[in-house]
Amino acid sequence: PAEQVLLQALARLDTLTKPVGALGRLEGVAAWVSSCQGVCPPRPFTRPRVVVFAGDHGIAKHGVSAYPSEVTAQMVANFLTGGAAVNVLSTVAGATVRVVDMAVDGDTPDVVSTFKVRRGSGSIDREDALTREEAIAAVTAGMRIADEEVDGGADLLIAGDMGIGNTTPAAVLIASLTGSEPVSVVGRGTGIDDAGWMRKTAAIRDAMRRARKVIGDPVALLATAGGADIAAMVGFLGQAAVRRTPVLLDGVVVGAAAVVAEELAPGAREWWKAGHLSAEPAHALALGHLSLEPLLEFDMRLGEGTGAVAALPLVMMATKVLAEMATFDSAGIAGRD
Amino acid sequence: PAEQVLLQALARLDTLTKPVGALGRLEGVAAWVSSCQGVCPPRPFTRPRVVVFAGDHGIAKHGVSAYPSEVTAQMVANFLTGGAAVNVLSTVAGATVRVVDMAVDGDTPDVVSTFKVRRGSGSIDREDALTREEAIAAVTAGMRIADEEVDGGADLLIAGDMGIGNTTPAAVLIASLTGSEPVSVVGRGTGIDDAGWMRKTAAIRDAMRRARKVIGDPVALLATAGGADIAAMVGFLGQAAVRRTPVLLDGVVVGAAAVVAEELAPGAREWWKAGHLSAEPAHALALGHLSLEPLLEFDMRLGEGTGAVAALPLVMMATKVLAEMATFDSAGIAGRD
Repeated sequence: PAEQVLLQALARLDTLTKPVGALGRLEGVAAWVSSCQGVCPPRPFTRPRVVVFAGDHGIAKHGVSAYPSEVTAQMVANFLTGGAAVNVLSTVAGATVRVVDMAVDGDTPDVVSTFKVRRGSGSIDREDALTREEAIAAVTAGMRIADEEVDGGADLLIAGDMGIGNTTPAAVLIASLTGSEPVSVVGRGTGIDDAGWMRKTAAIRDAMRRARKVIGDPVALLATAGGADIAAMVGFLGQAAVRRTPVLLDGVVVGAAAVVAEELAPGAREWWKAGHLSAEPAHALALGHLSLEPLLEFDMRLGEGTGAVAALPLVMMATKVLAEMATFDSAGIAGRD
Repeated sequence: PAEQVLLQALARLDTLTKPVGALGRLEGVAAWVSSCQGVCPPRPFTRPRVVVFAGDHGIAKHGVSAYPSEVTAQMVANFLTGGAAVNVLSTVAGATVRVVDMAVDGDTPDVVSTFKVRRGSGSIDREDALTREEAIAAVTAGMRIADEEVDGGADLLIAGDMGIGNTTPAAVLIASLTGSEPVSVVGRGTGIDDAGWMRKTAAIRDAMRRARKVIGDPVALLATAGGADIAAMVGFLGQAAVRRTPVLLDGVVVGAAAVVAEELAPGAREWWKAGHLSAEPAHALALGHLSLEPLLEFDMRLGEGTGAVAALPLVMMATKVLAEMATFDSAGIAGRD
């Protein structure tokens, strides 16, 4: 983002008809949008776009999730017919939703499976999620999807996740790159019981052991302990920065992809804001690692991009404040005593 | 709100295509909306309405504000031309804005001054803000305004404030009714310096002393230490409850009116949600007293209804989730393992 424009935006905020700083965090968001766009006042967003990356995970067969893997493909259909939470939130927020199948363990319509890398990623507690070639293909697919969206007019991007079992690789990636213990990153996911929690913790421990040797190589790390959906999000988030397009991050799975993307493309995080803080414990570690402050704390833990979309109106509002509010001069209003 | 419908709403939330509870606080908001409307699923809001209550305060002449009183009338004009922050936020949130002059110390257009009680309320550190008759007239005006709006189709109401000096009476009302010390309720308002802060603290102390004898009589309290704008908001918030219309509360000035309205009409708070937590210290005391949890914590301190409007999309989203999301059955999705 353009530092000169950031300063211009901060200065302009102080000329608007409100006390200095009175819009609180909205003001910082407004200035960030302006600096991402490289122009002050900023342009209100016209095409915020959500891309949901769907994929299954072999680990789900080993008792780490409350739901069976078949739900992933069923939810892809639900996104396409507009019945999922992210669809409903997006209609209110003024965003549109695209879903891509990166590794669903089942057949999905052609319109979503163009970039599919395989059926289900490997069970990361005992085998690699992907081959190196598959990891590169998935990252590249994510980059191409970001390019397609920006070329199609998207001016703000949101990545969402859908995949039974995906909080396990997310926790492994975050713990590995932040130097955390398995027990500090394991969460209840979609709602596992105590026995499931113990199995998940053990799976995270085993996968972290396998990941240790490739921790300095982001692509190898995605192949060892990620998955095609997460790898695609890594490419998507990195390419958004290359395309100078602001991103609103969602919860723990996107957060894991963001931590890896920042390793692969240092500085990419300057183009991201955190939409919310998930109830999943690993998410706070990821945001702390990226020095990002969540806009919302709503105890959400659904994924799909819902936490980011919930925060999207705040970003739209912040942008319009800087673009459309009257100044003291233009409104003929007296200044401070 | 209808308790039976609340239970129905909570049960329906668990049938939607998401893990139980995964939408966090959005789910509680959805159930609350449903219970206010007395129907499940709820109807998405079609006419959220902001009413900004403008009024001047004699105390502003005694160095408790960073801005001169003439700004109040100038800001009324700014609301009418759509240049203020609340106008801009409302265009994003899908709300419309009305402004009413209850006690501006200057002339305003007829369209906003129908209910005007006087020019400026008294300086509460040394005299009453209003006569008892004026206080009753202002409360009654607020009730009539709520009636007009609900009769006009408003299905969610937001009260906003505009008035140089108005955080001083707000702090006095909140401190008086929550049993707090002046120093724990005094804030920087629109941005006073240290000398102004000391004058404001002394004014709050003096006004609280005057208010002590009428603390059990809400109308007398408004006359002694409130103002016509705040009194009108009290009537507005109470009548919204009578008309079974949900309200999103704004910051410290509306919070003060809410505390008084709950004294006047116990139980009215069941119809209110807190939009945000203001940076003004008295606001947290008011919300705690009313047992309300703010939706946003954004360090906002502008008033005008901006904090409530910023949170409005979250309420719209919550409502649509319960109204429009697919159920596991309707989408043909497998349940938990």
